[in-house]
Amino acid sequence: MAEQQQLVLLDFWASMFCMRVRIALAEKGIPYEFTEEDFLNNKSQLLLDMNPVHKKIPVLIHNGKPICESSIIVQYIDEVWNHKAPLLPSDPYAKAHARFWADFIDKKLYQIGRNLYTTKGEEHEASRTEFLECFKLLEAELGDKSYFAGETFGYVDVSLIPFYSWFQAYETYGNFNFEHECPKLVAWAKRCIKNKESVSKTLPELPKVYDFVQHLRKQYGIND
Amino acid sequence: MAEQQQLVLLDFWASMFCMRVRIALAEKGIPYEFTEEDFLNNKSQLLLDMNPVHKKIPVLIHNGKPICESSIIVQYIDEVWNHKAPLLPSDPYAKAHARFWADFIDKKLYQIGRNLYTTKGEEHEASRTEFLECFKLLEAELGDKSYFAGETFGYVDVSLIPFYSWFQAYETYGNFNFEHECPKLVAWAKRCIKNKESVSKTLPELPKVYDFVQHLRKQYGIND
Repeated sequence: MAEQQQLVLLDFWASMFCMRVRIALAEKGIPYEFTEEDFLNNKSQLLLDMNPVHKKIPVLIHNGKPICESSIIVQYIDEVWNHKAPLLPSDPYAKAHARFWADFIDKKLYQIGRNLYTTKGEEHEASRTEFLECFKLLEAELGDKSYFAGETFGYVDVSLIPFYSWFQAYETYGNFNFEHECPKLVAWAKRCIKNKESVSKTLPELPKVYDFVQHLRKQYGIND
Repeated sequence: MAEQQQLVLLDFWASMFCMRVRIALAEKGIPYEFTEEDFLNNKSQLLLDMNPVHKKIPVLIHNGKPICESSIIVQYIDEVWNHKAPLLPSDPYAKAHARFWADFIDKKLYQIGRNLYTTKGEEHEASRTEFLECFKLLEAELGDKSYFAGETFGYVDVSLIPFYSWFQAYETYGNFNFEHECPKLVAWAKRCIKNKESVSKTLPELPKVYDFVQHLRKQYGIND
């Protein structure tokens, strides 16, 4: 078991990527400090020093050394604190399968979802279609399992569940209903919240994120 | 050591992503079959069946089961055939560091590099600037080391070295000189080719890739 001398998360409450790290640390039961970054208006010198390439949150600083990019951080946490609540399976094929879906989530959901509240007209319509297609693929991958890997909460769940806190914003600006489109995914999200304190204590309320997205749109100069 | 019953790579000679898989398999000394995909004009039913989500090469089919996305495939190969030529370090921090740079290469180089031969005017100029900035970051990360991880050829080298076979195309359409901009990276590439048969036997000749890019531009309807 690794020492836990100094663990600091450069964080932002509404970031689904930061939520992943918080959930992974909570699953492992690892105490940590965090600093809330004002990443929209005023990135801290610490953030710029710790992640000079991307200049993005989250950054996990472990004994002074930074780890960047949420999926890489979650894998790091899983490897360092491997005594409890394994997130990735040990079998290489099952691990590759989990990495595939986490990578799919990384490549698709954030950017396409962002288009729902930042674009209009044809681009908005195309993004809405693609966004729902992505979620339907995830719904099919989940199928009738309790969690993505089966009976145990794991890496793909950690990757996807933070997006649930953005569902009200996505539904409002995408003009669709998740319950109608992807009932199994909504049931899965509620299951995660009910069964996993790591999730229920991490995810903000949906209306709070929706208010934040309204604020973002104002900041970007987007009018209805 | 894992059994090697059936290993098939859905491949394309000019794809830097396929080259990664070929290099990793060669490093491990694993025999495999491959089928050359006509991914531009006529994707095979096997490819569509094995990678229905992205419909992209490479796909490694191991005993009938597909693994997709080159970085995930390389990690899979490293985990299954772990008896020889480890590509990722065992230390979690060193592993996260290698994953960070491979992820940087994945996120940036292909798409920005593609803009060099598909765009004009301001978009081309912006891509040229960003492309060189990315390579200068990689040059700084390499520093005076023999390979990205130090003295041993590893995961970041496997991720980046296939791009070398595209250098003539990038230089021609980007109007710059790699040797002038990034001398250490060019020396590193030549070192990989000289010292690693896995690389020298995998990478196509630069003029052959340049001809292919000219063919691509015609296919896309791009004129000079």
